[in-house]
Amino acid sequence: MKQKRMYPRVLRRGRDALIGVLLAIAAMSPIAQAADSLPSWTDGASKARIVSFVQGVTDPTGKTYVPPAERIAVFDNDGTLWTEQPMYFQLAFIFDRVHALAPQHPEWKTTEPFKSVLAGDMAGVAAAGEHGLLELMAATHAGMTSEEFARIVADWLATARHPRFKRPYDELTFAPMRELLDYLRANGFKTYIVSGGGLEFVRVFAERVYGVPPEQVIGSSIKTKYEVRDGKPVIARLPEIEFIDDKAGKPVGIQKFIGRRPILAFGNSDGDFEMLEYSTSGPGPRLGLLVHHDDGEREYAYDRKSSVGRLERGLDEAAQRGWVVVSVKSDWRTVYSD
Amino acid sequence: MKQKRMYPRVLRRGRDALIGVLLAIAAMSPIAQAADSLPSWTDGASKARIVSFVQGVTDPTGKTYVPPAERIAVFDNDGTLWTEQPMYFQLAFIFDRVHALAPQHPEWKTTEPFKSVLAGDMAGVAAAGEHGLLELMAATHAGMTSEEFARIVADWLATARHPRFKRPYDELTFAPMRELLDYLRANGFKTYIVSGGGLEFVRVFAERVYGVPPEQVIGSSIKTKYEVRDGKPVIARLPEIEFIDDKAGKPVGIQKFIGRRPILAFGNSDGDFEMLEYSTSGPGPRLGLLVHHDDGEREYAYDRKSSVGRLERGLDEAAQRGWVVVSVKSDWRTVYSD
Repeated sequence: MKQKRMYPRVLRRGRDALIGVLLAIAAMSPIAQAADSLPSWTDGASKARIVSFVQGVTDPTGKTYVPPAERIAVFDNDGTLWTEQPMYFQLAFIFDRVHALAPQHPEWKTTEPFKSVLAGDMAGVAAAGEHGLLELMAATHAGMTSEEFARIVADWLATARHPRFKRPYDELTFAPMRELLDYLRANGFKTYIVSGGGLEFVRVFAERVYGVPPEQVIGSSIKTKYEVRDGKPVIARLPEIEFIDDKAGKPVGIQKFIGRRPILAFGNSDGDFEMLEYSTSGPGPRLGLLVHHDDGEREYAYDRKSSVGRLERGLDEAAQRGWVVVSVKSDWRTVYSD
Repeated sequence: MKQKRMYPRVLRRGRDALIGVLLAIAAMSPIAQAADSLPSWTDGASKARIVSFVQGVTDPTGKTYVPPAERIAVFDNDGTLWTEQPMYFQLAFIFDRVHALAPQHPEWKTTEPFKSVLAGDMAGVAAAGEHGLLELMAATHAGMTSEEFARIVADWLATARHPRFKRPYDELTFAPMRELLDYLRANGFKTYIVSGGGLEFVRVFAERVYGVPPEQVIGSSIKTKYEVRDGKPVIARLPEIEFIDDKAGKPVGIQKFIGRRPILAFGNSDGDFEMLEYSTSGPGPRLGLLVHHDDGEREYAYDRKSSVGRLERGLDEAAQRGWVVVSVKSDWRTVYSD
């Protein structure tokens, strides 16, 4: 047994005071804490902005303090939390479903847009336009119950592989963003996904992959109907668009589902512009961020001219609006987890 | 100073064991805990059913355990959390607003349904039917931003008084129900309001009065639009019904906003039937409850023949479905707080 060393009282007091000061400094130092919470972020300006914002809104003695109930953070999904190239993953799901369902629909061999999908003719699919996309959506997303649809999506995620990375789609989430979600929640934030993708599609993996429960997912939706089938109540999915959660639809969805203006918004494309504009325009501290996909080696490089996840107005106006442009290449040490 | 009494070691151990057993019994006894949490409920069968359900789903060693994330409880508002007689409080708001806005609309003196409202002619208002109600809604609920509407409702709540009880409407919430909301949250439940009333109407007071934050309020809604007005982004309220959160609309709203089937549902009228049916039909433990307004002295007595909050099918089928019918007269010691 080690003998307890005795300090004179005055020294003990001095030592305690010193420890207190050190603890206070540690608590005040944003970078010290961030080093633990955001290891996949490089120690650049983007990380510093995030950490200083979080420190500011959580310090109860500061002027920028925000009560926990108002710490709402909203995240786009495609291109912000996971990859969206070479096509939106939900579009890959639609194409795979058309192939899977084709044997039950011999007429698809000669009917657009199904014919083009089955032939792998992307130009043909694009030529079918919005009407064609609605038909694909109706054929693959409607006609079943919500629970059945969730099972179909879960089965697809378990088996489908990304064409370039040969990994399940839900492994292609961004490690720095998952860390950020955790970091915000550890600091009393409520984290929401506000996706242009389908509400009931994203909910299937959001809790497992991002720690975001179904009730904190907002997305595009089709109409549904309550029915009692053979004595069992179900929610039936109907082949009719209800809400497009993109562009000016995002603030509308946020107000409808959350009912308060977020204080942090993170997107990556011009489809997220209005969400950032709305979130960063209220009183008090606000933070808007955009992922800039500039790393073709580790992920994809695209912005102004991309048909998927086009980012133009956001790049033009980020500086004047005080939004942080996060570079995949230089701000992220890691893109995906191994 | 009292001198510390010393027990021989074996006695101390016996005493500690005894205390441990007593604590364990206290923790296991539902009624003992409920006595603290639900003082406005009489010690009858209804309270016992609630407490035994909550004990069952929170006991991690039991067969009926439910993880916290799935402990979703949904409550109707009108007639379940607050009084709904002699008319829905939101209807009183509409009538008061028509009076307040009348000077700016001289044409209302000769145009229905406004003419009847201004004359206090309820039969005339009723005669204007659904179309008349839509016109009243458009005139009082649309044409402003979400933030402006919230301020109008808050101002009304601060000044309007209930015709019989002469109290602000938001003081006419049921004390036993507020206790139940607290009790459920203390046991890891997430409590939601699922109201036929307006989403942005109920949100104005739900957090302050019930402890339910805006993002846990589901309700009927009108369409909205995102706009930037003089550089300020706002949500504008449009004069068009978007969603009626009543009857079969309630499960639809629940699935859209929450994305999981609740395990507890509490209503009071046949407008809540489908919500209870849906919530109590999944696997695992489920609890459905209905407030039965049978106390004309302390509140109001009405059920099968009421035009407001009619309860008929619920009363007929409660027993066979295992739903608890809560009597205001005999289950509630207190109705309102003083």
